[in-house]
Amino acid sequence: MFTIIPLKNGLDNVEGFYSQGINAGLKKEDNDLAFIRSDTLCDISAVFTTNRFQAAPIKHFQKYPKEFKTDFILINSKNANAMTGEKGIEDIEEILNAIEIKTTNPLMSSTGVIGYRLPKDKIIQACKKFNFDTKDSDSTAKAILTTDTFKKEICFQVKLSDDKSFYIAAICKGAGMINPAMATMLCFIVTDANIPKNDMDTLLKEAVDNSFNTISVDGDTSTNDTVMLLANKKSKIYDKEAFKEALKLLTKELSLQILKDGEGSNKVVAFEVKNAKTKEDAKKAATALSNSLLVKTALFGEDPNWGRIASTIGASLVEASEDTLVISYDNVTVYDRGVNKMDEEVEKKASKVMQKDSFKIVCDLNKGDSSYTAYGCDLSYEYVKINADYRT
Amino acid sequence: MFTIIPLKNGLDNVEGFYSQGINAGLKKEDNDLAFIRSDTLCDISAVFTTNRFQAAPIKHFQKYPKEFKTDFILINSKNANAMTGEKGIEDIEEILNAIEIKTTNPLMSSTGVIGYRLPKDKIIQACKKFNFDTKDSDSTAKAILTTDTFKKEICFQVKLSDDKSFYIAAICKGAGMINPAMATMLCFIVTDANIPKNDMDTLLKEAVDNSFNTISVDGDTSTNDTVMLLANKKSKIYDKEAFKEALKLLTKELSLQILKDGEGSNKVVAFEVKNAKTKEDAKKAATALSNSLLVKTALFGEDPNWGRIASTIGASLVEASEDTLVISYDNVTVYDRGVNKMDEEVEKKASKVMQKDSFKIVCDLNKGDSSYTAYGCDLSYEYVKINADYRT
Repeated sequence: MFTIIPLKNGLDNVEGFYSQGINAGLKKEDNDLAFIRSDTLCDISAVFTTNRFQAAPIKHFQKYPKEFKTDFILINSKNANAMTGEKGIEDIEEILNAIEIKTTNPLMSSTGVIGYRLPKDKIIQACKKFNFDTKDSDSTAKAILTTDTFKKEICFQVKLSDDKSFYIAAICKGAGMINPAMATMLCFIVTDANIPKNDMDTLLKEAVDNSFNTISVDGDTSTNDTVMLLANKKSKIYDKEAFKEALKLLTKELSLQILKDGEGSNKVVAFEVKNAKTKEDAKKAATALSNSLLVKTALFGEDPNWGRIASTIGASLVEASEDTLVISYDNVTVYDRGVNKMDEEVEKKASKVMQKDSFKIVCDLNKGDSSYTAYGCDLSYEYVKINADYRT
Repeated sequence: MFTIIPLKNGLDNVEGFYSQGINAGLKKEDNDLAFIRSDTLCDISAVFTTNRFQAAPIKHFQKYPKEFKTDFILINSKNANAMTGEKGIEDIEEILNAIEIKTTNPLMSSTGVIGYRLPKDKIIQACKKFNFDTKDSDSTAKAILTTDTFKKEICFQVKLSDDKSFYIAAICKGAGMINPAMATMLCFIVTDANIPKNDMDTLLKEAVDNSFNTISVDGDTSTNDTVMLLANKKSKIYDKEAFKEALKLLTKELSLQILKDGEGSNKVVAFEVKNAKTKEDAKKAATALSNSLLVKTALFGEDPNWGRIASTIGASLVEASEDTLVISYDNVTVYDRGVNKMDEEVEKKASKVMQKDSFKIVCDLNKGDSSYTAYGCDLSYEYVKINADYRT
């Protein structure tokens, strides 16, 4: 038995971790540079983007030996340090060497515009302003944002008994380029649980697959996507099931926050494909729905145009037929095995569902017993506006 | 040797073909119902959507024997007659049976909203208004449009010598849901060339692959996509190379018109991927570019943000590396094997290219010798607006 208790103030709750965000002049006023530091060495697990052009910080990470420990991460927003070649990695080394506190195997993580070298001197100068003994999760969470409109920060106390508990906390950024492949997101998770390195690796991968990898904002995949888990083991407490559940909840909650904050997005929609012939079919169809421009614009228009749902399922080339397909908005069935149920009353009900901030579109294929849920958002004018002039 | 001469008035130039478009009350005022008729039986070749939920008119077509001849097509817009099951096919049969002129193996073709039965009585009543001996390509081309903003109509006279020529003409509709898989488009091609049925099949498939299958408006694939070629052989003239070239030109021109008229689109952009390791890689990368929301919004913003081009190539998982990739806008190189070339002057030149109505984005992978060009358009506010309330 265990209890999961949500707490405010994110990373600040976890003993031995310090963090702070400041403005280094990459953005005009907002925070754009942060550190996360541990006063002892941590085990680390990481999941990175599958993009062929991994950004310099990811390549820098991979230069360390396989099972290294670390105590320091520097993070900047506004510049992705991607497509910058060997120079991009040298810049990271130079910046990390200039940090005025002893670090072991320090890391860097970046997000922002692709193709430009980091403003090295600006960053080195700004690092002098850090107070490395500060606990300031709030400023840290804000410093890693790009087009996000709110900070994403979370902490759980996991109680195994009255006197036994550990903490797990995270900050994260998302917004555009979110795709079932973890795009344009950074997520830093810290814990004092006494978790073995093996469990860190397998549980993190599993949690990412079931959270960040199920969401889509625009179907694009970035060069910088990173999820890191740092464990300092200070609590000396651990229970695998409890940690697994807490990590699952934490990543799921963050992924829904990312989606809610998708560029110009107003709605979070769960696309549940049921009774597919295979697991692959279920995933393929659900992902096609969450990525379809025509479905996304219909969501924005709050138009229960189920023909687009059907057409997208058909175009995904999964095993499906008109005679077995059932489509519902929450529990309002609009198409039932060959019959359009959309009379005036049903249309009114379906439209009402679509006016909600979050709802479910269920496609029952009736071809087998596999299911998959992908999460998506609507496509608004605002998305086009944000992305038409992102660099400026 | 042969000469290809473009002519006005589309289908009207081809001997033995008659056509007319009228308003049947499916749309408020605009034409929404048309016929194309031949005074003798024609061979027919067709390419249909790969969508699993093929619309009723496609299923109706497939009920005829494999090598049937026809002399009549009825076409409506506004209602796709898709996801309507057996009833949808019965509706077509009832409508075609009521046509007040003798037809052999008559066909129907539909485009519009998915999921609703055709307004049978309205259509049957309206058919009585047709003059079946009219040549009126203009009204016909207009009747098949949905969200298109201009009619698409073309005719070539193909001259083999001073006294030997044949004609090939077409009308077509496109707009949204255009994807490398021929989406939401209808195209009707008629010819008096004395072309053998075998050549019709192979040349049509080849032409569609190199035209409609290379363009993308929004990556969606519809239930109704249809390209038909009707040959009445009346000219008794034929030359395979000449026909092939004319058909290629005609389909290419129509596919670019579709793209130009993509919903809310302002630009036609060619994405040329060069020197890919394999043909599949070239096609995969080029298609990923033409479908990427982030690339499409950058086109709309006229922002030479080449990082998004690179990121999309990387995310497509083709064989590629930072050290060999070269990215250019027309002949302005912005990234060259590891080096960002975007100084102030280059940025000015690249921005100027992007302000054009049509230009080329070239990605040289330097990994092999395969190339592919996909065609795409920008994503504007207008696209979102059109698709947020398409049904109304």
